[in-house]
Parts: sequence; C-alpha cells; structure tokens
Amino acid sequence: MLLPSTVLLSIFLAPAVNALWPLPQQLTTGSTPLRLSNGFDIKFKGINNPPQDLKDAVSRTEKFLSNDKLQALVADRGASSASQIQRAKQLTSLVLSLDSTGGHHKRAADATANTNSLGNKIKSISDEAVAPIGQRSEGYTLTIPADGSAAVLSANSTLGLFRGLTTFSQLWYDWNGNTYTLQAPINIADYPKYPYRGFMLDTARNYFPVDDIKRTLDAMSWVKINTLHWHVVDSQSFPLVIPGFESISQKGAYNSAAVYTPQNVKDIVSYAAARGIDVLPEIDTPGHTSIISKAFPQHIACPEAAPWSNYANEPPSGQLRLASPDTASFTAKLLSSAASLFPGNTFSTGGDEINQNCYADDDKTQKDLKSQGKTFEQALDTFTQTTHAALHKAGKVAVVWEEMALDHPVTLRNDTIVMVWISSENAAAVAAKGYRIVHAPSDYFYLDCGGGGWVGANTLGNSWCDPFKTWQRAYSFDPVANLTASQKDLVLGGQQLLWTEQSSPSNLDSIVWPRAAASAEVFWSGPGGDSAKALPRLHDLAYRYNQRGVRAIALQPQWCALRPGACDLTA
Amino acid sequence: MLLPSTVLLSIFLAPAVNALWPLPQQLTTGSTPLRLSNGFDIKFKGINNPPQDLKDAVSRTEKFLSNDKLQALVADRGASSASQIQRAKQLTSLVLSLDSTGGHHKRAADATANTNSLGNKIKSISDEAVAPIGQRSEGYTLTIPADGSAAVLSANSTLGLFRGLTTFSQLWYDWNGNTYTLQAPINIADYPKYPYRGFMLDTARNYFPVDDIKRTLDAMSWVKINTLHWHVVDSQSFPLVIPGFESISQKGAYNSAAVYTPQNVKDIVSYAAARGIDVLPEIDTPGHTSIISKAFPQHIACPEAAPWSNYANEPPSGQLRLASPDTASFTAKLLSSAASLFPGNTFSTGGDEINQNCYADDDKTQKDLKSQGKTFEQALDTFTQTTHAALHKAGKVAVVWEEMALDHPVTLRNDTIVMVWISSENAAAVAAKGYRIVHAPSDYFYLDCGGGGWVGANTLGNSWCDPFKTWQRAYSFDPVANLTASQKDLVLGGQQLLWTEQSSPSNLDSIVWPRAAASAEVFWSGPGGDSAKALPRLHDLAYRYNQRGVRAIALQPQWCALRPGACDLTA
Repeated sequence: MLLPSTVLLSIFLAPAVNALWPLPQQLTTGSTPLRLSNGFDIKFKGINNPPQDLKDAVSRTEKFLSNDKLQALVADRGASSASQIQRAKQLTSLVLSLDSTGGHHKRAADATANTNSLGNKIKSISDEAVAPIGQRSEGYTLTIPADGSAAVLSANSTLGLFRGLTTFSQLWYDWNGNTYTLQAPINIADYPKYPYRGFMLDTARNYFPVDDIKRTLDAMSWVKINTLHWHVVDSQSFPLVIPGFESISQKGAYNSAAVYTPQNVKDIVSYAAARGIDVLPEIDTPGHTSIISKAFPQHIACPEAAPWSNYANEPPSGQLRLASPDTASFTAKLLSSAASLFPGNTFSTGGDEINQNCYADDDKTQKDLKSQGKTFEQALDTFTQTTHAALHKAGKVAVVWEEMALDHPVTLRNDTIVMVWISSENAAAVAAKGYRIVHAPSDYFYLDCGGGGWVGANTLGNSWCDPFKTWQRAYSFDPVANLTASQKDLVLGGQQLLWTEQSSPSNLDSIVWPRAAASAEVFWSGPGGDSAKALPRLHDLAYRYNQRGVRAIALQPQWCALRPGACDLTA
Repeated sequence: MLLPSTVLLSIFLAPAVNALWPLPQQLTTGSTPLRLSNGFDIKFKGINNPPQDLKDAVSRTEKFLSNDKLQALVADRGASSASQIQRAKQLTSLVLSLDSTGGHHKRAADATANTNSLGNKIKSISDEAVAPIGQRSEGYTLTIPADGSAAVLSANSTLGLFRGLTTFSQLWYDWNGNTYTLQAPINIADYPKYPYRGFMLDTARNYFPVDDIKRTLDAMSWVKINTLHWHVVDSQSFPLVIPGFESISQKGAYNSAAVYTPQNVKDIVSYAAARGIDVLPEIDTPGHTSIISKAFPQHIACPEAAPWSNYANEPPSGQLRLASPDTASFTAKLLSSAASLFPGNTFSTGGDEINQNCYADDDKTQKDLKSQGKTFEQALDTFTQTTHAALHKAGKVAVVWEEMALDHPVTLRNDTIVMVWISSENAAAVAAKGYRIVHAPSDYFYLDCGGGGWVGANTLGNSWCDPFKTWQRAYSFDPVANLTASQKDLVLGGQQLLWTEQSSPSNLDSIVWPRAAASAEVFWSGPGGDSAKALPRLHDLAYRYNQRGVRAIALQPQWCALRPGACDLTA
C-alpha cells in the first residue's frame, strides 16, 4: 500500500496531539488545519446493501464526531488555533470501500447477500468478529487529504472498516462547535500485531448487569480489543442460565434478577460482535464450582467445607467430583449446552487451582478412584478428555489456565489455548510444550491487585498479587520475553483481567479504564512503547471515554494533562 | 439517662444485623420483629415551628425509609423471616423531642423564633453545625419499643436529633415492601467520642462539580462525619472565586465552568450545615500557590520553574513571596475575603512543603530578606503572623499542617489547630508543643496511596505513600497512641483525605466509600474495634450507600457479604 512521501513516523514518535490509541502501524501527518463540514457524511462506495452492523457502526461514529466535544489537551484548549480552525478547509465526507480483492469469504453463503463492487458476498462485522482467531481481517488504510477532498477508508473486510472508523473518531477535537484537526493530511496503514487482544471480566464474585457489560464492550472496542473473556460463573455464584440446567442459576445466582438468560447472552454476544468482539466464555472446572452443589449436590466434593483454606484458595470450597463418570458426563453436557449460546469457536474450561485435599477428604471421590483403579491425575485426565471432547464436538477449541498444561499430566489437543496467569515467567514453559498462549499474567495484567486483602479477619492483609498493577507496568509487557524464535508464533496475544472480589458495578469503569488500554496497545501496535511518550495519548483517551460516558479515572492533575511532559520527573 | 434492663451490649459486640455505622455508645436490642406501618410518620413533640432544616432532615429520613429497600445481608435475604415480618407489630410513629433542659443556646437571638416546649429558642441544625468545635451538641437517645407504641428520639439540640434520625434510618431492612427490624426493642444512648470527624477533599488537582461535593456531603452525614476539610485550591488550579480577587480564578481555574462562585460556596456550606457538617476551607500558603502567578505574577516566586523537582514536591512550583510585605498584605486580604464565604470558625492556611530553593533562587525574595535583615524563618514567622492575625480578626481559628508547628519556629496562637499528616508518629511532637490536633496521617488515612506513581516518565514508580490504605488499616488507628494522659484532650479527632492527583468525579465515590467510614467510627464510637466484627456492618453500609446513589465499592464477593464470618481467614 502506498503512503504519501511526507515524513513516515515511527509509531512511537507520533505527535501527542494525534490522540490515537492504539497507535497505528504506519502514520503520517501534516500540519494543515482541517475541519468537518456541517454536513459531513460517511458514505459507502461500491458496497451494495451494507451489513446492518456496519451501517450502525457508521451511525455511532457520526455520533461520536458530533458528541465527543473533546477540547484538545493543551493549556489553552485550542483557543490560540481558533482563527486557523475557522479558516480551515472543510472535509465533507469519509468514503468507505472494500478492497476489490477482499470483501468476500469462502465460508459465507447465505442468501440475503451483501455484496461488494465485484458482486462478492460481504461478511458482516459480526460474522468476521467471531471467525477463528487468526482468520479475522482487521487491517485498514485511512487517507485524509488536507485539501478537503474526500477521506478514504479501505479494508478488505467490514471488520477492518470498523477498526478504521474507530481510528477516524479519535482524530478530532472540538473548538467552539468546530470538529477539527491541525494535522492534515493524515495517512494511516494499520493492522494488529497479535490476533488476540482481550479483557477478562469475572461476573461471579459480584454480579454485573447487562448494561455494564455492554458499556464495557463499547469501551473495549474503542481501543480495538477483540475478545471478552467472560469468566461468567464461579464458586460464589452461577448467573448463567444454561438450557437444560436452569436449576443451577435458579439456586446459585445471587438473586433472580442477577442472571444472564439465553436472551441476555444473545444480546451481549451480538452487541459484542457488532463491535468486533468475540466472547470467550469460561466455565471453570473442576474447581471453582462450589455453587453447583445447591442444585446438584451429588456432583460436588467438599462444598463449603471448613476451614475453607484447607480446601480452596478462596471461600467457598467445592469442586466437581472429577472421578465420577456421572459427573464427567454431567459436566460435558453442561459445557456443550453453555457453548451453544456463544457463536465464537473458543470455550474455556478453566482448570486452575484444583485442590487435592478436597478430593482426598471426599469419600465418593475416593471410592470412584478406587473402583476405577485411578490416581487423581489419571481421573483428571479422563475428566478433561471427556469435557474437551464434548466441546470439540460442539466445534469449540478448548482454552485452559496454565496449570492444565504445566502442573497436571493431562492429555490436551494440540490446538488447546493456554492462558498464563500465575506468572509471566511461565509462558516459556507453556511454549516449550507447544501450546498456543494468551498472556494473562498476574504480575502485569491483574487489575484487582493492590487494594488490600479481602478475606475477613485478615486485618492488615495485602492482596496476594500486590502491588497495584499500573498502566505503565502493563504497558511494559513483552509478549515474547524468554521465548525462542520458533516459539514466538505461539503467542496469540494477551489481556488484562478484572477479578471482582472487591469490584462491582460501582467501580467497574474506574478500576478498568484507562488501564486496560495498555495491553490493547501492546498487542495491537506491538510492545516497546515509551510510557512517558504514551501518556498524553492515554490522557486523551481517558478524557474521551468520559465524554462518551465511560468513567475512566484521571491519570494526573488536569494541569499536567494539559501540558504534555511538564509533569515528567525531570521536566 | 435510663436504659431498659435488657442486655447492655458492649459497643463492639452488637449483632451484625443491626447495621449501624458508627456504632452508638450504648445499644440494647431485643429479638421481637417490628415493622413500620404504611402510614408511619415522624412527628415533633413540644417543638413549635421546627427549623426548616430539621423538617427537611425528617423528610429525607422518611424517604430513606421508603426508598432504601435494602434486603438483609443474609443468605436468604430475609425470606425465612417473612411470616414473622408479616405478623409483626407495626410502628406508627417516631416522636422527636428536645430535652427540656436544652434546645436553646445563649448566642441565638434572631426574631423568627423557633422554640421548644419551654419557649426557649431552638437553634437550627445548620447553626449548631457551625458552632466552634467542642461547643456542638451531637448526642441523642433513641427508644424503639417492641409493642408498636411510638418510638422516641430525644436530644438537647436539633443537631442531636439529626444524628438520631441518621441512626434510625439505618435500623431497617426491606422484605417484600415491608420495612422491618427483627431486633425490637432497640434502645440507644449515643454521643461522639471526638468533636472533629472529618473528610478532606482536594478540588484543585482535579475539579469536582458542586453536585459531586453535595453527594459526598450526604454520604459523610450518613456516618456522622461533621467536617468537610475543603482543600479548595492549590498550585495546579484555583477554582474558588474570591470577592475582590476574581482574576485568580478567572486565570487559574481549569475552565470558566470549573469554579466555585460565592453562590456555589453558599449553596455548599448551607447544604453541608443542614446535614450537620461544618466546612473548613483551606487556602494553602505560602507554598502550593503557583497558579496565583497567572493573575498576580508579582506575588509568586519560582512559578513553573524547571526542573520542578528542585522547587516543589510536585509540579508546578511556585510560592507566595513570603518576605514581601506587599505579598503578605495581599495574602491576608485574600484569606479574609475567602474566610467571609464560610460560616464556620476555622480556616486553614496550610503551610506544608515549603521549598527553600524556590526562595533562595528568587531575586525579589532575597532582596526583601536583605532589606529587612531577616532570615527565611523570620520572614515566614512575620508572614504567618500577618495572615493569622487577619483570620483572627475575621473570627477564625487558624488550622495548619504539621510543619508549621514542628519544622518552622513560627509564632502560632495557642488555639491553633495542627493537622498531623506526614506520619502518625508526629502527633506526639505536636502535642508536646501544646497544640490541638487533628489526625490526618498519610500512613493511615490517605485514600490516594497505592495507585502507582502519577509523575510522568516514572514508569514503574510507586506512590510515595504506598501501600494502599485499607479500611482495616484506618480502622486500627489509635488517636491517643504515644500521648500522655494530659495530652489526650488535645486530640480533636481526625479524618481520611482524598488528594486528587489521580482522582476525578469518575472515581470519587469508589475511592472514598466505604473506606472513609472507618475513621468516622474511630472518632465517633472510639477506637479499638475489631475489623472482622465490623465487616458485616460495613457491608451493610456499602450496600445501603449504593441504594442511596453513592457508589461505594464491594468489600468482598456478595457470597461473603451474605454470610457474615464465612469468609474469615479461619472460617
């Protein structure tokens, strides 16, 4: 793809006022003011009958352009540029086009054809978003001339167009009702370094209403995060209503309204997909399942045993009776049914923090092991093969926490995706086993750390993963640290995570944003960015989020936000 | 005062379901269910023409009783008590009365007399709230019989009645539209251990709209905090519009809307006073004043000097030219005018973190010192005496940060109140000098600690006052640690504080609540509480805050909140 011969900036040297997050792979800017005309319009070119989700994305983009009303983060907020802005050429349109080579997809075959200029079928953003990891096309090019002639956004997929629209919406500031940039022409060629860029939300320790999840999905999409890893249930509550297993949520949700019905899930996954986000559900097994005992006591060992610390990493204890063929079958059916609610092709069976005391003290499990002549590890292997086979049959690739690859001699399919969480240092061991990796290390990416211990009667206890993980810490993450050249391709990407023992809707936005944007840039733009240089852009993002109703926290006094660099340590 | 001969519980043994915070000094409860009748009413007895703010407080209490709709924090949320609740006797009224010995105040003398049954003048809550520290009457007694006969709330001041109404509103849960307690009869005799129970908010590093401050005042009043220490301006911005000095906020506020006009201040102080809260304003001097240079450059040394770390603890540098008689006079007038906006009798001149390099490098200051033959410390003494004399003349008692008592040989009036902030260990040194103390130690009460460093280009820096100060840490504070018996009376109380370098309206509620309730209980009920026993009550408070629109964070998974003690370390 051709770029104008203006200065091609290395991605981390882009001027701060170009408030893009994540930074595009290639970016050139000029110094000509340009403003949107009153009738500014986003049009399609050579896209017949665009998919509804693309039309909706265009509408949202137009709304952001009108409503963001974010003044430039400079001391005078743009006042000194007023006359320049007033006199600026006006951009009247952004034209969206699908590259002639793209826009179709071999597997797309339904009758209500959306087509590109060659008559090829166009996949919707939603279809593209839930394609298997590595098969999604997220790249785009964006050209904004300085002379007022139409801006052009091209991609070979609607998902790529959506990513480009997201970028376009970040380029503009407001001064006195004028939506402007001082940096035309702007030319961008962009694509992600890593195919998996996620955010994990735990909705079991405390419940989050659907609207909170949707707002989070919006916020994720604004930094091009493409996966919601939804840790939907756990030992404390089971809000997911699973067809055929409704009694679990009836008895295990915090209350009858604190649930996600199949209709809610459909709503969430379609909302996500329309924003380029796949939902990776997790039903953690065999540990973290205590609450299932309320509906199916026969399947749970050591439910709410005391002292809980002998039987689980956090209260209440309780694990699936993994040695019981009945329980394995129950779990396989449960997972299959749950999996049917989600359009994506990944599903996590968890597998972290299995407590062996729980099984050692469970008569039923000991009897089962004995009758089958199996050890715990052999039983875990059988259990895992049973549940993973069911998922495979349902068309899902299994995702597991690192213990299943590192701590237990369990047979996993080669395509299994392993999430590294205990320590970033464990990625190399997972890679050595040949599995694909999603980085989710507590030492960089856990958003809940540093708020003090939450276990009661532990007066001055700290959180186990102290200290607080700053955005700068997350931003410093190297996805290929300690990996050999041949292992690097195993890294799918990574994510920041919110475990919600001490979180609820009250602090969802403030504990997540803008911090979770740090990994979004690491895995889209690539690692190695200088956090001091990134700070002004992250300020911009945080202020823009607030304008859009997501309550990102302040990173500095506003005095500093308005004076990039002035509050640096040596300024 | 007489208490029924039921079991008198030590304050920290009160049952968790009596979700009071702070705990009353004396509390007895029974085990009889009681619910509010549909026509439940709060009445006055022997109070002719009650003050409007008392009538408003009654209305708010009635609204809380109707709208809180907080289910008991037990696993079944009250379901198993449904039939008991249904059959319970009904309480039809709460009667408010002023003790015959009280209700008047010698200084009250206006014509629109509100009188008690003896015809004595009744001071409003607002009048009582801004009386000098130590002269406010906040005690009350509350009797709720089990037989449905009227509950009685007595006090010798309207402020005491307000405190009692606050308590009354915390006693009730909701089940199916029934507002009930299972613990009648309830008898309370209550008063605060310490006269000063505060919360400090910094509105200069980032601005907080008036509505955020009002919501915070409501939240403060619900735990009987009686002082908003308002750190209203600082080096970064000057949002306070001071009559005669309007240019400072015109040039020093973040924008023309990010100000507190005299009308806003009047609104805030009256809103506060009606809720039993005095506002203690702070204009920090001579340091922390950089932004004044925008309007009055002649009065500021080293404005925005580089590198800032040579001249200030945080950017930007800039201090009042304390050796200049003109500047001292300017400052005295500024403080006097600001003080006139506030009805209370305290005013803080700050005095922390004075940077001597700033003055050493300021030609004007060096010339002033030379011409007067003064050292820096002598000049600081003169400056302080000038500003404090102006405040004294305006009827205000000066409040200062600890450096003014400990680090500088400054002449302070005996009635000066000193806030200990650098370390709790410094309280003893302040006491040794005989000054009254407000505890505001960073090692217990700073709510901003632990979020990582905010100075730019300091990639992995921690906050200077790491770690995060948990509510349990604050709750463990001993106000008289290391003080002699004769020094203990110098302790007026204490407060938690929110410095807002990394806070904004987005996280105001979540960073403050319920944590700031910890010191509220320490200074009302007294220290020494067991945080494990307090936890269920604090859960209750946090859930109730959310019901009332204050977004307090979750302290634990809801599973734990519903099972008091079950998530304790050894449970």
